[in-house]
Amino acid sequence: MPDTRFAAAQVCRFLTAAFERLGLPAADALTVAELMTQAEVQGSDGHGVIRLAPYARRIRAGGINLEPRIRVLKEKPAMALLDGDNGMGHLVMKQATELAIEKARRCGVAWVGSRLSNHAGPASLYARMALAHDMVGMYFAVGNANHLPPWGGLDMLLSTNPIAVAVPAGEEPAVVLDMATTVTAYGKVKAKAQRGEQMPEGWMIDRTGAPLTDPQRADEGFLLPIGGYKGYGLAMVVGLLAGTLNGAAMGSEVVDFNKDDTTITNTGQAILVIDPDAFGEVADFKARVDKLVRELRGAERMPGVDRIWMPGEQSHAKRMANERDGLLLPPALRTQLDALARDLGIPLLQDA
Amino acid sequence: MPDTRFAAAQVCRFLTAAFERLGLPAADALTVAELMTQAEVQGSDGHGVIRLAPYARRIRAGGINLEPRIRVLKEKPAMALLDGDNGMGHLVMKQATELAIEKARRCGVAWVGSRLSNHAGPASLYARMALAHDMVGMYFAVGNANHLPPWGGLDMLLSTNPIAVAVPAGEEPAVVLDMATTVTAYGKVKAKAQRGEQMPEGWMIDRTGAPLTDPQRADEGFLLPIGGYKGYGLAMVVGLLAGTLNGAAMGSEVVDFNKDDTTITNTGQAILVIDPDAFGEVADFKARVDKLVRELRGAERMPGVDRIWMPGEQSHAKRMANERDGLLLPPALRTQLDALARDLGIPLLQDA
Repeated sequence: MPDTRFAAAQVCRFLTAAFERLGLPAADALTVAELMTQAEVQGSDGHGVIRLAPYARRIRAGGINLEPRIRVLKEKPAMALLDGDNGMGHLVMKQATELAIEKARRCGVAWVGSRLSNHAGPASLYARMALAHDMVGMYFAVGNANHLPPWGGLDMLLSTNPIAVAVPAGEEPAVVLDMATTVTAYGKVKAKAQRGEQMPEGWMIDRTGAPLTDPQRADEGFLLPIGGYKGYGLAMVVGLLAGTLNGAAMGSEVVDFNKDDTTITNTGQAILVIDPDAFGEVADFKARVDKLVRELRGAERMPGVDRIWMPGEQSHAKRMANERDGLLLPPALRTQLDALARDLGIPLLQDA
Repeated sequence: MPDTRFAAAQVCRFLTAAFERLGLPAADALTVAELMTQAEVQGSDGHGVIRLAPYARRIRAGGINLEPRIRVLKEKPAMALLDGDNGMGHLVMKQATELAIEKARRCGVAWVGSRLSNHAGPASLYARMALAHDMVGMYFAVGNANHLPPWGGLDMLLSTNPIAVAVPAGEEPAVVLDMATTVTAYGKVKAKAQRGEQMPEGWMIDRTGAPLTDPQRADEGFLLPIGGYKGYGLAMVVGLLAGTLNGAAMGSEVVDFNKDDTTITNTGQAILVIDPDAFGEVADFKARVDKLVRELRGAERMPGVDRIWMPGEQSHAKRMANERDGLLLPPALRTQLDALARDLGIPLLQDA
């Protein structure tokens, strides 16, 4: 492995050490580190290692409960509502998903929501947890900063509330959709600004509704929802299901996690798990998914298109490559991680 | 009421008589007529009275089972899979939704899927059935004709697979999202062609990927999914959940309902019902929905925007107006209905 790359296990050890030093119990530090590493490995780099610094900042500011009592507030055979007790979102939603899987096995389908949770990384992490059980996972969350006004409005009252759906396949990689309800994620706008590039039309508009293409002016405009008013509607109903239904923050109650390190975010999320075994032979279902995947992939292509991708297939390819070759972290991120390691008094990533 | 308008009850009587004469048992004829009338009343005119002629054509061709034995094929506490026995989709999905509501009351959440169903009208009809029980409804369906290739492809292997979500409110109208996963519906393209108008860029592309704006050339291109590859991903996962999971048609198996009157469509749909009562006080939940609706509606507006609409609010306004003033049917549709009435030997709409 070239010395600019790090094995996933090494990154995970480093993150675990950091979270332990920040005060998380060892088992919880490992859980959060593993999920952040999985995010990095699948190419969700905006939700991977880069989040260590802001998480550390919030933890040190007292904005996270390090020893939360995550508990079931309400329960029925096919549902539960968890109180995350302001713990790390990864811990809350891992527990929520495990509970949903257990309930889905008995009931066929189950839904578990959270309140008083926190940012939990990419939506697909939790939807994908169902795959190991040959189940379908569907995840909804209220994003941790509002970047979207209602359609026709100027006040940013909605987040890019994501949806993820993971469907097991047989020989093919699982189909995994993970999408924000905006045309692009705010992280991609920041990346364009860092690289000094312009954005394409359709990513953002300004306060008059005109296209905004200069990422340096991002503060003067808004992200555009997919399909215009349709994406606004999707962002709203995802927020109703993941936030309002759970008694979690929605609309003006959403705390901007990037700007405020201490106010309890009361983040809401929800996971739906469906057990295909309840519908018939799982092997038959997975064979039908394979057949569909191959049919779509084998479609005649537009001029200049090399390959038709399935949802989640590019992440799958990244996951395979990163597991084989190790993770390539940008120099700026490595510098940041080294500074944090010295500050925390833990071994540098290269020595982890 | 001016003589160009018809009371909803009159339209419903006319449709009931037509379906009875076509051979549906009286109770089933009434159920289908009521749901089609509801579609018309809420402004879903592409799924309302206009569908009588194609339904009649398929029924007469023997493509619908007039006395289906709709039955539960598989069942667990929070799920069921219905075999629609090739009956009218309205009958199948009404039964599916009623079963999901009953199961959600016991389990908190329930999911019911269908196979061997048929076109059932607008997605919101079934999601909205949950509202009368103060529950949330979510509906997914495989559309009845493929108009969408996979992203980058040319073969139309996907339909505009719709999603509907209905969330009860307190004093405000319920929030009801009902959207195809394409930027526009194929019906709107046909309407532009009939009126001799051009389509805006972004509705369709041709086989080279260039914008297609002439609706007369619609056969040479494809509908565009919302958010590009994101909408393609949504259309695919909706199809996996509503079609593939249920053993219903998906991909190349989808029968073009507009061109083929006899092949069994094996349409798949799914309804998810969530009971907010399982999560806490329903009145509190509905008050939170009201608060969010008012906050979004009250946002500062862009120049030239008169009002910020909630998902489903325009349909709600149409429903109120049409119930008060009666339904205004276009002259071409009235001519078609009169011809059909004479052909079937039932009273004309004006005499129904």
